[in-house]
Amino acid sequence: MIKEVHGGVTAPKGFRASGIHCGVKKEKKDLSLIVSDVPASGAAVLTTNKVQAAPVLVAKEQLRRSTTFRGIVVNSGNANACTGERGMNDAWAMAKAAAAALGADPHEVFVSSTGVIGQYLPIGKIIAGIPVAAGALSVDGGAAAAEAMMTTDTFRKECAVRFDCNGVPATIGGMAKGSGMIAPNMATMLAFVTTDAAVAPHLLQRALLRATERSFNRISVDGDTSTNDMVVVLANGMSGAPPVTDDAGVSYQTFEAALEYVLVALSKMIVTDGEGATKFVEINVTGAATEEVAVRAARAIANSNLVKTAIHGEDANWGRILAAVGYSGIDFDPSLVEIGFGNVPILRKNYTIEFSEEEAKRVLAQKEICITVDLHQGESQASFWTCDLSKAYVDINANYRT
Amino acid sequence: MIKEVHGGVTAPKGFRASGIHCGVKKEKKDLSLIVSDVPASGAAVLTTNKVQAAPVLVAKEQLRRSTTFRGIVVNSGNANACTGERGMNDAWAMAKAAAAALGADPHEVFVSSTGVIGQYLPIGKIIAGIPVAAGALSVDGGAAAAEAMMTTDTFRKECAVRFDCNGVPATIGGMAKGSGMIAPNMATMLAFVTTDAAVAPHLLQRALLRATERSFNRISVDGDTSTNDMVVVLANGMSGAPPVTDDAGVSYQTFEAALEYVLVALSKMIVTDGEGATKFVEINVTGAATEEVAVRAARAIANSNLVKTAIHGEDANWGRILAAVGYSGIDFDPSLVEIGFGNVPILRKNYTIEFSEEEAKRVLAQKEICITVDLHQGESQASFWTCDLSKAYVDINANYRT
Repeated sequence: MIKEVHGGVTAPKGFRASGIHCGVKKEKKDLSLIVSDVPASGAAVLTTNKVQAAPVLVAKEQLRRSTTFRGIVVNSGNANACTGERGMNDAWAMAKAAAAALGADPHEVFVSSTGVIGQYLPIGKIIAGIPVAAGALSVDGGAAAAEAMMTTDTFRKECAVRFDCNGVPATIGGMAKGSGMIAPNMATMLAFVTTDAAVAPHLLQRALLRATERSFNRISVDGDTSTNDMVVVLANGMSGAPPVTDDAGVSYQTFEAALEYVLVALSKMIVTDGEGATKFVEINVTGAATEEVAVRAARAIANSNLVKTAIHGEDANWGRILAAVGYSGIDFDPSLVEIGFGNVPILRKNYTIEFSEEEAKRVLAQKEICITVDLHQGESQASFWTCDLSKAYVDINANYRT
Repeated sequence: MIKEVHGGVTAPKGFRASGIHCGVKKEKKDLSLIVSDVPASGAAVLTTNKVQAAPVLVAKEQLRRSTTFRGIVVNSGNANACTGERGMNDAWAMAKAAAAALGADPHEVFVSSTGVIGQYLPIGKIIAGIPVAAGALSVDGGAAAAEAMMTTDTFRKECAVRFDCNGVPATIGGMAKGSGMIAPNMATMLAFVTTDAAVAPHLLQRALLRATERSFNRISVDGDTSTNDMVVVLANGMSGAPPVTDDAGVSYQTFEAALEYVLVALSKMIVTDGEGATKFVEINVTGAATEEVAVRAARAIANSNLVKTAIHGEDANWGRILAAVGYSGIDFDPSLVEIGFGNVPILRKNYTIEFSEEEAKRVLAQKEICITVDLHQGESQASFWTCDLSKAYVDINANYRT
């Protein structure tokens, strides 16, 4: 039983958080701190972009050096990416300042940054802000922390679930940011997840990889993969539930399902809040030979500017969907494909088109649209989430730096 | 010596063309015919999309069956794609009607369609229009033919060159259409090229493949690969120049260079006329280990919505360029990369950033922008052409069918 509960990263026991304004941005909150009261096991998934921001490189080093973790410090307003040696020094300075405030080792505090690329951090302001953020830590601070890492986001993204862990209730809570530079295949953006379950590091990493593959790696806003993508999960065992130690056991399966639930919920929020998005789009590819084939086809559809603009215009342009599957690289027989919008069949086998434009229009006029594509070649399926492409996306991104 | 001359497909000797209105579109011209007075050798490059429009499938069959060709019939306003068996019958009906009007075999007349996907051709109107188009054929008809295959294009695209072919002047002329569904790696769209040089079919095919690789395959408007992409070249030998028979000879080299010249010119016109485009962007990646690496990096930049919107906003957001190279899949050292806009260096090695925003702004305010990216890893380079992403692109594509 996985049950959604109120809150985010401070919903699990033994986690506190805060979000404050330290001066990277003009007025809005820009510094988040998440802390586990006791050393926690940690796992992370990092961007696959060859250009990796300083915090990503620091996290790699920390994961090599440390087996326990105490917290995460995040600034918004500046991504500390493409900033060379000075950027690395700044990222470590953030880790050290947060560690000092928490009485931890610098290798135990993850650092994360999001915002404009290619400018140096105003590191003095951040270092001065960290003790203030530490002073503001609270068991109700999850929402403030989620808010302080927003950039072009229009709402904060939190989710928490309760589940049965070896007979004891445990909780997973998460927060995410992101609405642009969201790309297929490694679209992680920033997401931080806490749990009071006790999970061994290698199992935590395994569960995180699998859940990320089925959540953040299945969303797309603009097809651009960020240099800063980072998902971190901390597990501190404070629920008192017996440790999850065996990946064949029920508790691991439940933990993994609960984690996937939280990450999928956060992923959908990211897409809903996609830059300039007016519609949330779920793409379900069914009847595929393998899950990989289904994902590949779905990703091509989700990434097509032509499909996304047609959805924006509420135009039942199914030909663009079929064309996108056609260039996705999968092997299939186009004459077998069936396409539907919501519960309205649009294209049937052998290119048979029998639908009322009015009915299709009614589905496409909704805020949440489900596109189904049946390849009729096998039993596998996958879901993928994206948003429409609007003129507001162009507005937001034409002058992002200014 | 390759010299640009006036005109398009009727610039070479022995070719006539016409463009008329037959009723697929409401008012504009929608039917083009190009004819060689004598049987010509032919070659074609067709879309790699798995979903192939009927005319593409017909062309494949024609290339298998016939060694000589007489002409090309093209309609705009409807792509005859995803139309199943009826679409195939319609495409063959077009070939037969054109062949009858020209006294040729149906296998000798290529068919091409462009416009909306997934609707049946108004084949009666086209069949009725073909004799009219045949009656209008003229040695000055290239411009009308180029005009009649336009869809969202805002200007017709023609280019012709004269070159020395074994001591005798010969001519290559071409026309193209396209401004949306222009995608990397197989972005051909429709382009029809004629020459009065005599070129053996296998050499014609080889030259066309290479020239396409360096022209139409190096442009991108929106990253969507069409179901109808088609480039055809006809060589009728009417210049009287001795045949090009040896691919090691000077005449083949010159022919190939002249063909590449025409295709590159047409490619640049397509990008300049990209849907909603306000700027033409040339991306030069240099210092690459191989040409393939350079193309791959350039394509990722050209395809990035974030780069394209930044250019639209005249924002010197070099970080997005570097991030795109980072996810392009190539192997490189980000700290060695140098980026420039026009002649203004923006990023130097080791992430050194020393540029005046005003100077960058001045370059970006121009209509034609050149972005240079030096990977500092080798001696290879490649050019790629694209346009910016504007709100007008969204407008054009949100309601394309209506």
